[in-house]
Amino acid sequence: MGQVAAIIGGGVIGGGWAARFLLNGWDVRVFDPDPEAEAKLAPVLAQARRALPSLTDVALPDEGRLSFHADLAEAVADVDWIQESVPERLDIKHRVLADLQAACPEEAIIGSSTSGFKPSELQEGAARPGQIMVCHPFNPVYLMPLIEVVPSPVTDPALVTKAQDILRSLGMYPLHVRKEIDAHIADRFLEAVWREALWLVKDGVATTEEIDEAIRMGFGIRWGQMGLFDTYRTAGGETGMRHFMAQFGPALKWPWTKLMDVPEFTDELVDLIAGQSDAQSGHMTIAQMLTARDDNLVGMMRSLKANDWGAGAVLNAHEARLRAGTVLGAHADDLEDVSAPILTVRRAVPLDWTDYNGHMNEARYLQAFGDATDRFMALIGCDADYVATGGSYFTAETHIRHVDEALAGAMIEVRTQVLAGAAKKLHLWHEMYEGERLLATGEHFLLHVSLETRRPSDPSQAILTVLTRIAEAHEALLMPEGAGRFVGQRP
Amino acid sequence: MGQVAAIIGGGVIGGGWAARFLLNGWDVRVFDPDPEAEAKLAPVLAQARRALPSLTDVALPDEGRLSFHADLAEAVADVDWIQESVPERLDIKHRVLADLQAACPEEAIIGSSTSGFKPSELQEGAARPGQIMVCHPFNPVYLMPLIEVVPSPVTDPALVTKAQDILRSLGMYPLHVRKEIDAHIADRFLEAVWREALWLVKDGVATTEEIDEAIRMGFGIRWGQMGLFDTYRTAGGETGMRHFMAQFGPALKWPWTKLMDVPEFTDELVDLIAGQSDAQSGHMTIAQMLTARDDNLVGMMRSLKANDWGAGAVLNAHEARLRAGTVLGAHADDLEDVSAPILTVRRAVPLDWTDYNGHMNEARYLQAFGDATDRFMALIGCDADYVATGGSYFTAETHIRHVDEALAGAMIEVRTQVLAGAAKKLHLWHEMYEGERLLATGEHFLLHVSLETRRPSDPSQAILTVLTRIAEAHEALLMPEGAGRFVGQRP
Repeated sequence: MGQVAAIIGGGVIGGGWAARFLLNGWDVRVFDPDPEAEAKLAPVLAQARRALPSLTDVALPDEGRLSFHADLAEAVADVDWIQESVPERLDIKHRVLADLQAACPEEAIIGSSTSGFKPSELQEGAARPGQIMVCHPFNPVYLMPLIEVVPSPVTDPALVTKAQDILRSLGMYPLHVRKEIDAHIADRFLEAVWREALWLVKDGVATTEEIDEAIRMGFGIRWGQMGLFDTYRTAGGETGMRHFMAQFGPALKWPWTKLMDVPEFTDELVDLIAGQSDAQSGHMTIAQMLTARDDNLVGMMRSLKANDWGAGAVLNAHEARLRAGTVLGAHADDLEDVSAPILTVRRAVPLDWTDYNGHMNEARYLQAFGDATDRFMALIGCDADYVATGGSYFTAETHIRHVDEALAGAMIEVRTQVLAGAAKKLHLWHEMYEGERLLATGEHFLLHVSLETRRPSDPSQAILTVLTRIAEAHEALLMPEGAGRFVGQRP
Repeated sequence: MGQVAAIIGGGVIGGGWAARFLLNGWDVRVFDPDPEAEAKLAPVLAQARRALPSLTDVALPDEGRLSFHADLAEAVADVDWIQESVPERLDIKHRVLADLQAACPEEAIIGSSTSGFKPSELQEGAARPGQIMVCHPFNPVYLMPLIEVVPSPVTDPALVTKAQDILRSLGMYPLHVRKEIDAHIADRFLEAVWREALWLVKDGVATTEEIDEAIRMGFGIRWGQMGLFDTYRTAGGETGMRHFMAQFGPALKWPWTKLMDVPEFTDELVDLIAGQSDAQSGHMTIAQMLTARDDNLVGMMRSLKANDWGAGAVLNAHEARLRAGTVLGAHADDLEDVSAPILTVRRAVPLDWTDYNGHMNEARYLQAFGDATDRFMALIGCDADYVATGGSYFTAETHIRHVDEALAGAMIEVRTQVLAGAAKKLHLWHEMYEGERLLATGEHFLLHVSLETRRPSDPSQAILTVLTRIAEAHEALLMPEGAGRFVGQRP
């Protein structure tokens, strides 16, 4: 990509931004006056390197270059994006914005991570207010999809569009907030829940732990995939939202929240909350909690991919973007040379593929080989459109040899050789590597079937033509060592 | 189990309760004066039968018997649990409670699904108030873990404990709400968010769709695994909750919500919300949304199992309960006869195991066989405690033959034969069946390894003793048809 981002302020939020850009191939320049800036960023970057490559089923681009700068003007010169994540004080933000606008390109996007200030407030006294918008992220920034993109009426609309395109290219979900408002959208809900939660703790109704369980065992799980309105739409039955509102609207008048009041923020309240929080989660360090959190978020978001739903749909779109223009997104007709084994998988071993033995679980080897087979099928034209016409390949037989272990985060590649491919039959040989190290081989016998009769049938002529071209080219390759073997056979 | 539940009111909530009891082996009696009661319950039950067996990696008990009753006294006679889910009007609830207490056992639990009334309100004028408590579920009741168990001061504490035990046996998470309060706990948060959301829509700041995305792309995913306080605890860094509160506490005084006011519930507001909801999700029927929702919830909750976290920990505990006392939870020393192939997996094919071909994905066959191998290892004493001492079995080689397809929901069993087991080597043969229909065979060669050196090593003497007993017993079995074959070999 060759794009450059400047990260102004390298705390947890700025660090998360730095990681998100860096791991998506951007060069990143960090400006933070803290002499510990590099040390402060390191753990966030380590967390991101552990978790972010797990989100997608295709490898991210090579990391960009990371540099730290003591000079703000140097950090923002010739950059494409500037992300401001300095403390939430308007005077500090105004000073930083003035300084960076004196040195940065006019066409760069200046996004602010502020949760509290409106873009028009940030723009007060700015040299070029049209360049400034709020791009409000959610922690952990390297994993969470949502970015609230909030322009003011004077922000350049072309830059707002460009910002959203860039955020999508980072695998994020930009939500265009059309009307600036205090706290934007999401934090208004968080604030409402926070205030109510403080009341419940203060009044001794529930502890922090009980409140957390009430959230994550119930509506929290629901809200990971549908928001408030779609959840209630489904609760209303086929009559939908109107029915739901007729049924539950009157509750608005009932005393179900302490909405009319705000708890006094006393030392006693802080002690109460902090003490209960220690009782709830003090048995874990924060680092352990962050690791668990990231594992959970990765798993939950990845589970939404199968349905192409919500955050899972964001991941699928990102993967399609990552595959585009590479051999992993090509049709065989686009490839001049198919004489060597073909790259069919290139990805990190995700966090949810390892098991109690601490390495990639045996079933995940077959998942990667199955993905390689799917990718080979798409390469020869047996893609989703073709499957919709009623034909597909089913695997009849598989032989896997585990040669070496792979750990979470390992970059693996699968290369695929056609041992035979004619009429209904397809005999494939996959080799899985981490770098030069062979991890496993997979030998697979597939049959083309009619999805209507579930019986073997010939594939389309178009598929046969492409398959024959590859099969004939691969006839010149050596029969791989290990092919045609049975389980337990001596080498 | 032989336990019986009476479901009073068979709408979406009552139907969800009926399904949760029924699919966990309880007999269920439904009382609902609606002549369409049976037809009304059918779709909820169908949804539950589709989704609930997907949650666990071990089969649920056989379904109990479902019956519909026109006579309330008949429905509640001799039952263990009565769940009241009639409309949210106190006069109706009082009448129903009086009628059913006239006919039900004194020791039965009477749970109310009310979201609005306190247990002391329900108990007013009751013959035996000590029997009544709130057991407030969340939609869909057949999938969501949370039940708010709210006793009043006069509810019998022994019954409250018993209710929680029963709810756990149904795979649910009972949250004991110690102090009764309007709307209990979770709904107070939902109400706060609902009011704020109505304001945002009314004021034209955001549409229903934008609000839903702000939730499910951000804090919704987070709250599926950690609640409010643990999320903020982690945001505070190693200093935890106190640091977070010092930083963000002052925001309580800022105008970040419309907390001081409640929007007028006018026809215009209803039209606005319902219209926006149609624009957002009108391209799907509610039935389609419910299917997608259940797929998503199943996937997200299952993803939390690997970390034994939140709703995933609830599932793991439920599975342990389901395995206890069966061959799936036994050590070989508990089994008198090991001469036949051993049952190592009995489970439904979960929703997230099927692929674009509409059947169980090839990698999931190996996952089931891998689970069978793990289970066999545990049977011979190579369990988590043993692995912690530094030894384990690694699979070196696998040969799978796909004989037939399996669809989501199919009840599959794997039976395991030892082809050879001595010193470091273990040669296993798995057969997967749906009923009498053979779906696949798996032939696996494993080596015992030292987890320190990652090199082959002998297992413990205890394991060798048990393994030898089984291997010698299995020597009398026929060599399975298909063992020792290579890929593509003609039968």
